[in-house]
Amino acid sequence: MNLIGHLINGAVVTPEGRRQPVYNPSAGTAHAEVLLASTATVEEAIANAKAAFPAWRNTPAAKRARIMFRFKELLEANADEIVRLIGLEHGKIAHDAMGELQRGIENIEYACYAPELLKGEHSKNVGPGIDSWSEMQPLGVVAGITPFNFPAMVPLWMYPLAIVSGNCFILKPSERDPSSTLLIAELLHQAGLPAGVLNVVNGDKEAVDTLLTHPDIEAVSFVGSTPIAEYVYQTASAHGKRCQALGGAKNHAIVMPDADMDNAVEALTGAAFGSSGERCMAISVAVAVGDEAADALVAKLSQRMQSLKVGAYSDSSNDFGPLITAAHKAKVEGYIQSAEEDGAVIVVDGRNPAVGDANGFFVGGTLIDQVKPGMRCYEEEIFGPVLVVVRVDSMQAAMDLIDAHEYGNGTCLFTRDGEAARYFSDNIKVGMVGINVPLPVPVSYHSFGGWKRSLFGDLFAYGPDGVRFYTRRKTITQRWPSSGVREGAQFSFPS
Amino acid sequence: MNLIGHLINGAVVTPEGRRQPVYNPSAGTAHAEVLLASTATVEEAIANAKAAFPAWRNTPAAKRARIMFRFKELLEANADEIVRLIGLEHGKIAHDAMGELQRGIENIEYACYAPELLKGEHSKNVGPGIDSWSEMQPLGVVAGITPFNFPAMVPLWMYPLAIVSGNCFILKPSERDPSSTLLIAELLHQAGLPAGVLNVVNGDKEAVDTLLTHPDIEAVSFVGSTPIAEYVYQTASAHGKRCQALGGAKNHAIVMPDADMDNAVEALTGAAFGSSGERCMAISVAVAVGDEAADALVAKLSQRMQSLKVGAYSDSSNDFGPLITAAHKAKVEGYIQSAEEDGAVIVVDGRNPAVGDANGFFVGGTLIDQVKPGMRCYEEEIFGPVLVVVRVDSMQAAMDLIDAHEYGNGTCLFTRDGEAARYFSDNIKVGMVGINVPLPVPVSYHSFGGWKRSLFGDLFAYGPDGVRFYTRRKTITQRWPSSGVREGAQFSFPS
Amino acid sequence: MNLIGHLINGAVVTPEGRRQPVYNPSAGTAHAEVLLASTATVEEAIANAKAAFPAWRNTPAAKRARIMFRFKELLEANADEIVRLIGLEHGKIAHDAMGELQRGIENIEYACYAPELLKGEHSKNVGPGIDSWSEMQPLGVVAGITPFNFPAMVPLWMYPLAIVSGNCFILKPSERDPSSTLLIAELLHQAGLPAGVLNVVNGDKEAVDTLLTHPDIEAVSFVGSTPIAEYVYQTASAHGKRCQALGGAKNHAIVMPDADMDNAVEALTGAAFGSSGERCMAISVAVAVGDEAADALVAKLSQRMQSLKVGAYSDSSNDFGPLITAAHKAKVEGYIQSAEEDGAVIVVDGRNPAVGDANGFFVGGTLIDQVKPGMRCYEEEIFGPVLVVVRVDSMQAAMDLIDAHEYGNGTCLFTRDGEAARYFSDNIKVGMVGINVPLPVPVSYHSFGGWKRSLFGDLFAYGPDGVRFYTRRKTITQRWPSSGVREGAQFSFPS
Amino acid sequence: MNLIGHLINGAVVTPEGRRQPVYNPSAGTAHAEVLLASTATVEEAIANAKAAFPAWRNTPAAKRARIMFRFKELLEANADEIVRLIGLEHGKIAHDAMGELQRGIENIEYACYAPELLKGEHSKNVGPGIDSWSEMQPLGVVAGITPFNFPAMVPLWMYPLAIVSGNCFILKPSERDPSSTLLIAELLHQAGLPAGVLNVVNGDKEAVDTLLTHPDIEAVSFVGSTPIAEYVYQTASAHGKRCQALGGAKNHAIVMPDADMDNAVEALTGAAFGSSGERCMAISVAVAVGDEAADALVAKLSQRMQSLKVGAYSDSSNDFGPLITAAHKAKVEGYIQSAEEDGAVIVVDGRNPAVGDANGFFVGGTLIDQVKPGMRCYEEEIFGPVLVVVRVDSMQAAMDLIDAHEYGNGTCLFTRDGEAARYFSDNIKVGMVGINVPLPVPVSYHSFGGWKRSLFGDLFAYGPDGVRFYTRRKTITQRWPSSGVREGAQFSFPS
Repeated sequence: MNLIGHLINGAVVTPEGRRQPVYNPSAGTAHAEVLLASTATVEEAIANAKAAFPAWRNTPAAKRARIMFRFKELLEANADEIVRLIGLEHGKIAHDAMGELQRGIENIEYACYAPELLKGEHSKNVGPGIDSWSEMQPLGVVAGITPFNFPAMVPLWMYPLAIVSGNCFILKPSERDPSSTLLIAELLHQAGLPAGVLNVVNGDKEAVDTLLTHPDIEAVSFVGSTPIAEYVYQTASAHGKRCQALGGAKNHAIVMPDADMDNAVEALTGAAFGSSGERCMAISVAVAVGDEAADALVAKLSQRMQSLKVGAYSDSSNDFGPLITAAHKAKVEGYIQSAEEDGAVIVVDGRNPAVGDANGFFVGGTLIDQVKPGMRCYEEEIFGPVLVVVRVDSMQAAMDLIDAHEYGNGTCLFTRDGEAARYFSDNIKVGMVGINVPLPVPVSYHSFGGWKRSLFGDLFAYGPDGVRFYTRRKTITQRWPSSGVREGAQFSFPS
Repeated sequence: MNLIGHLINGAVVTPEGRRQPVYNPSAGTAHAEVLLASTATVEEAIANAKAAFPAWRNTPAAKRARIMFRFKELLEANADEIVRLIGLEHGKIAHDAMGELQRGIENIEYACYAPELLKGEHSKNVGPGIDSWSEMQPLGVVAGITPFNFPAMVPLWMYPLAIVSGNCFILKPSERDPSSTLLIAELLHQAGLPAGVLNVVNGDKEAVDTLLTHPDIEAVSFVGSTPIAEYVYQTASAHGKRCQALGGAKNHAIVMPDADMDNAVEALTGAAFGSSGERCMAISVAVAVGDEAADALVAKLSQRMQSLKVGAYSDSSNDFGPLITAAHKAKVEGYIQSAEEDGAVIVVDGRNPAVGDANGFFVGGTLIDQVKPGMRCYEEEIFGPVLVVVRVDSMQAAMDLIDAHEYGNGTCLFTRDGEAARYFSDNIKVGMVGINVPLPVPVSYHSFGGWKRSLFGDLFAYGPDGVRFYTRRKTITQRWPSSGVREGAQFSFPS
Repeated sequence: MNLIGHLINGAVVTPEGRRQPVYNPSAGTAHAEVLLASTATVEEAIANAKAAFPAWRNTPAAKRARIMFRFKELLEANADEIVRLIGLEHGKIAHDAMGELQRGIENIEYACYAPELLKGEHSKNVGPGIDSWSEMQPLGVVAGITPFNFPAMVPLWMYPLAIVSGNCFILKPSERDPSSTLLIAELLHQAGLPAGVLNVVNGDKEAVDTLLTHPDIEAVSFVGSTPIAEYVYQTASAHGKRCQALGGAKNHAIVMPDADMDNAVEALTGAAFGSSGERCMAISVAVAVGDEAADALVAKLSQRMQSLKVGAYSDSSNDFGPLITAAHKAKVEGYIQSAEEDGAVIVVDGRNPAVGDANGFFVGGTLIDQVKPGMRCYEEEIFGPVLVVVRVDSMQAAMDLIDAHEYGNGTCLFTRDGEAARYFSDNIKVGMVGINVPLPVPVSYHSFGGWKRSLFGDLFAYGPDGVRFYTRRKTITQRWPSSGVREGAQFSFPS
Repeated sequence: MNLIGHLINGAVVTPEGRRQPVYNPSAGTAHAEVLLASTATVEEAIANAKAAFPAWRNTPAAKRARIMFRFKELLEANADEIVRLIGLEHGKIAHDAMGELQRGIENIEYACYAPELLKGEHSKNVGPGIDSWSEMQPLGVVAGITPFNFPAMVPLWMYPLAIVSGNCFILKPSERDPSSTLLIAELLHQAGLPAGVLNVVNGDKEAVDTLLTHPDIEAVSFVGSTPIAEYVYQTASAHGKRCQALGGAKNHAIVMPDADMDNAVEALTGAAFGSSGERCMAISVAVAVGDEAADALVAKLSQRMQSLKVGAYSDSSNDFGPLITAAHKAKVEGYIQSAEEDGAVIVVDGRNPAVGDANGFFVGGTLIDQVKPGMRCYEEEIFGPVLVVVRVDSMQAAMDLIDAHEYGNGTCLFTRDGEAARYFSDNIKVGMVGINVPLPVPVSYHSFGGWKRSLFGDLFAYGPDGVRFYTRRKTITQRWPSSGVREGAQFSFPS
């Protein structure tokens, strides 16, 4: 069975140590093993990164950026293989995996802007004859810890920007689907990255804790669930590191009576069930304003869902694939059952879908109406292809619901009305707001981040905040005390 | 005896509770008592701030800024009284207190730029017909905890920017010298600030801990010593708040053989002894490169120090005043004694200076030569009028010394040479670098922050980082789904 | 009779020379005479400005800005007198004049941001060991030529920003209403401006031509009518100066069937008749989409106009005052007559209004329906209290009308629909677009400028473009060739 | 003989019309003919560009940028052929042509940043409930007119940025060496550019005048000599276009007594003779401060020049190649003769160099000492491999010399002294300043432009100014008048 190792100092290594199987969730079978890094292995990666830092920080930003230009080319050239690996280990259908990769490439494009992004501010004459300017210097060695649901994209939110800013990087990706992540990291080396600047260590809590506590790690970026995000943030902070930790979500879409209902239904279907709902930006709650809108919405959604096709990643006519593990499948099914028990109405039931391979971890698209706050299926993040509908009688009630929820990642409003859109986007306590856009993931040149318990830290992921996160401000104030050489020259050489 | 209260919801209040004397350190006598806020008092302040927030966040930034314009006018009009209060309770001489106030006013000037500083980024067509933009929204209620050494300036680093960004603020200033801080806060209300937007609570650990743990406090800015900064950062972080905590310093100035020596001596004298060295940007270590430079430096410094005048704040011909407390005076004298014991040479001894009032907490300017790493007087922050001289034989050795120290707040290089300046500012691991500028405090439109254990957090104080710290990014992605109204209009009214 | 002179080198001077009466248009009588500067007088002003430049450019931006802070205070303290002078010579009612002044003060507030606005961009390591940065340096002596309709505001669009950027300035304001302009300039000197930095010369074409051709004038800002703007732009450009010349307008408002009609009528009434329509941002054409909307609009407008009060500036219950001259009154009346002759319907006729003083230059609010392209009252800028209504049958037709007009200053759309608003603002060929905002004058921290023949030049007035206009980019690229001093120091002083 | 045509609407066309030979200056023989576009041909190009504009402006900036990413790849892949064509028609040696191409590619890299560069500014609550933002919209069809000396680079200063900003472009390159320019333009189409967005017309004054006067051309960028630049600027301005016209130069390098002389000599040799001095950033005047420095400089330079190798482009061991035409060769020789006649000392005489092909247009490196202001060889731009030395007795005298010259493109100071560098860069009236950098061409993410008669217009070429030049500001101010839909929804659905 294939053994997936680490990428340290420019080469893949497979030291002795603990291992864990890697599954093909479409078939329910393991196809490889991945090494779980020991503390010593992580320390080795850190040591290599530290050694690579001095030369890398002194490499002009434009040269660092040129490696990112080449990296983008290589990802485009190798897209099919990357997409295949994502599908194999995550279960995502090709069109979805390609979308993920494209988003990741866009983050590389942004990293290519480094010479622009790293400009400091220069002030002439802050006092008489005194100038002052800022330099955004790299931190040193920084780390990223990333989740299974976007094995290509989320790492690319982090290390291209960190590296192009002059840092060296340790990536600890998800051990569930490590292959595409590793291939992409190898392509960056092929693009010309010096050995040691990027290191990938597969692993579990041992590796994570090493990163969170090691004195040579200056900063940690994390994406995952809220309990782990909180642990990561507190541990890293307590060890003097800067940290940004992105956690869970429960994204609501409000459907107003004046919304273009066909558009809303189409948008919600993709946003709720795409990638089996295993996205922190998935819409998992539809809030219909007024029973008339609610009835129309539920009717149209359930009709639209009849044509949803669930199945293995290898058939690109499928709409979405399996969940990541058998355990997670069981958990999602448990949420559906709890809804039933709590008195909600299961309009479309995705349990036991009719799909090819009965061993795959499949759950079909599920629609639950009459859901109310307090029900487990409303309060918790399901991370599966389950859309719950809550009915309210005013837009304000819908907004109150959203603001009362512990998460504040993304949200969306369907309306035609300029005033409603402005009121909503102004006041809602959520970091990423869509107006008729169900998945308002900011483009790569803006920044990604939720509010409330969806993000710990002050700076968001990627974009302008990413640059700020991966750099440390230095301010120089300069004055030249006398004109000795300049005026001295005058006396030395009389005409 | 005068009783100093809190400023809550626009009015000074003096509830029952614990009290502590406030000293005039020039005379060694208490002249007032200050209330120490209970948890309930702090909670009351927070509740008022929270109530004031909705209206304040919706006030246009330009209107908020206009209050800052008026605030600046009032500080200028009341400068003499503010300066007097600083002198009385802190001991700073008028010219020094006026400098402090002026720096604080400059932070208000920067807050006046709010409409410019709060601009978001707007991107047209992030996709076909889709626009996206960012808004930097206020956090809600935020807090500041500030030290005794700049009772006017350091609070002004924080709340003008926080408030003008739309937040409400709780200030917990130093209980050693609260009067000038309180007066300034009252002037802001006179300038038109609505009640509840700024609240000042005097207090000690009880008040601090309430702020660090209260669920309605969104962010904490702190300036003080490193152990407390670390405690504040970890506690606030663990309670889900964003935090920036600025700590101690041991600022080195390198004197190169080619330096303009008279300029360096003049600069060092002010930077080491001004404000009795009770500044986190004071130069407390002079590193001379080569014995020739060292000998010249020590000779000229000891000569220059002969004319230094120490005494009460009320005599404006004095160069600097007393230390803040009797305990701190004893501590500083202890450092001088330790240096003697460790084998350093006390060139000028400031213990038992001949000053008017023997009860004042005075220590005179002290110069210690032949200091080496490992000595307590080198490793620790003395926070008194003590300058130690370390001799090295190369600029690289001087830089290694600085980089090995736990603090990284400020540093300075004296040279005429462009290459040395560039190498130094590029490589030194210190956040604020001066070239022939001994106190490289960034101007108000840049940001203040040290590296290493001098600052915990990712964003610096005031300036551009201050704005980012006190605001939360929201990204809106907007698409309008159909041209119903626009094209519908066409059908309704045929020509 | 009062004689109005020039402000040169910090003092008002009244040399011999040509004069012209200054009228009170509310009474139709002259109350003062203004000097018309000769070429020699203008040259003297330029020479003084040139002499003041070296010291002023070297004054730190923060210090220059502080004079602007004080200037703002003084304008607020003297607002009543400024407003009275505007009313006396321009005819504007106090509430309108106060609005004008407030807008001007906002431009001063923006000038206060100078330290932020003048920051250059600093790039570390553009090559190995090479840094590069930009400085936005002042140009030298620059000039502004301003119109009668905003004697306070338009000059304040220009010189505060020019001056705070380090330039010296020659202002040639309108000779129709020079008194408020002159008072304001004197207040800037009272605020601490050094003599020579700002000079005001009253005059006519002789003064203008001197400014446009003098080799020491580096740049010219102009606001006036399009034919003069074009002349100014071509003449200044041909003499090697940078130039921004703002001309005329014919601003259309589209009223959609879904608009909040009461709001639209209220907004249009103010936008069309305020300041007698003598504003380059006045709405002078209402385009109603569909006859139903048109009928409602005309009916409600004519009803609303019944309560409009026209009269002398001194009665603050008036809505608007007289036109600027008897000749201009006759011209506006001629436009109304031409509309009648061209077959349009005069719904409300403002000719011969019943006002107190029959000698004042009054025209009342006028509403003309059934106007069509080709009519003189549609094609030309009337600059009077005349609103024409054009009826179209689709929003696209309304937009085509706007795009076909030679001017492209401002425009507005009344709708509730997000999609219509976005389509309109994206595609319309107009520089300043309002959505339900009838006078979309950009706030002071954005920039003012029209498209097509409403502006000649590439940079707009005030705001970010204003800063760019009044500064010249300098890019420094720096490398230090050897480490002689730094490493040399090592050899000199062996340990 | 090969016939070089135009690239219009995505295809190379060769209509009937006037032609002109294209020379290989290394051999002195024509190897091709180039078509000279008639007015009709230029109009056809403009019409195609205009037709392509609506779709191109609506293409998201990120998609436009992706074509630039691909363009960069193709230029890198085709670098050898481009370099060969430059060498063949311009005479540049391969290493030099490769440097030119690399600089051009860097401008494409900057164009790839478009999504970042085109961000507008968004202001929330400019008034109560009113938002405002700016969009930087493309102009439409814009033109570039470029010189022979950088047939690859200078066009790439212009059209990548113009096009990525959403404009369509007409390029009129030099008719002396059109082949590399045309190949590069074809590669952009291969990268995916839609037909019509970029059009290349070869031609002479007829084509230029058509571009300068055609109503559909919105802006013109020009690089060439000052008399033509002035003509272009005045003509384009008079026709209502925005224009930036870059002209000639006479770049001085000051050599201070404390300079690292070997470094200065090496730098000056490259900067004066590289590309035969046919660069607007070439150093053509060395100003030595003090006779000691002057003597050393002249001695070392004349020695260094002995190893300079002049010859055909095809031999990559050559340092530089021929001049562009026989006429230009004669002109450069005339300047050397005039210097002789004016009393200067010809230290190294490059006339009649010993090179392989006697028919090539070669002039060797020439060094002239004892040159003084007033001599033709000092006052005029020679544009050949001629370095003149002026001797002065103080740095101030050197600076006065530079400031008195009509040009202000680039300049350089050789020193080790921080104070001298700062004084020089602050005060010198030149747009691009080098400190120990002889050719201070700003990197692509800063902007290129001279002062005085070296540039007409307010915005510089490429970089941030380039983006501003190729875009037109639009400011939208938006308010939504009532909450009809939002609150209406509330009434419709009572709970």
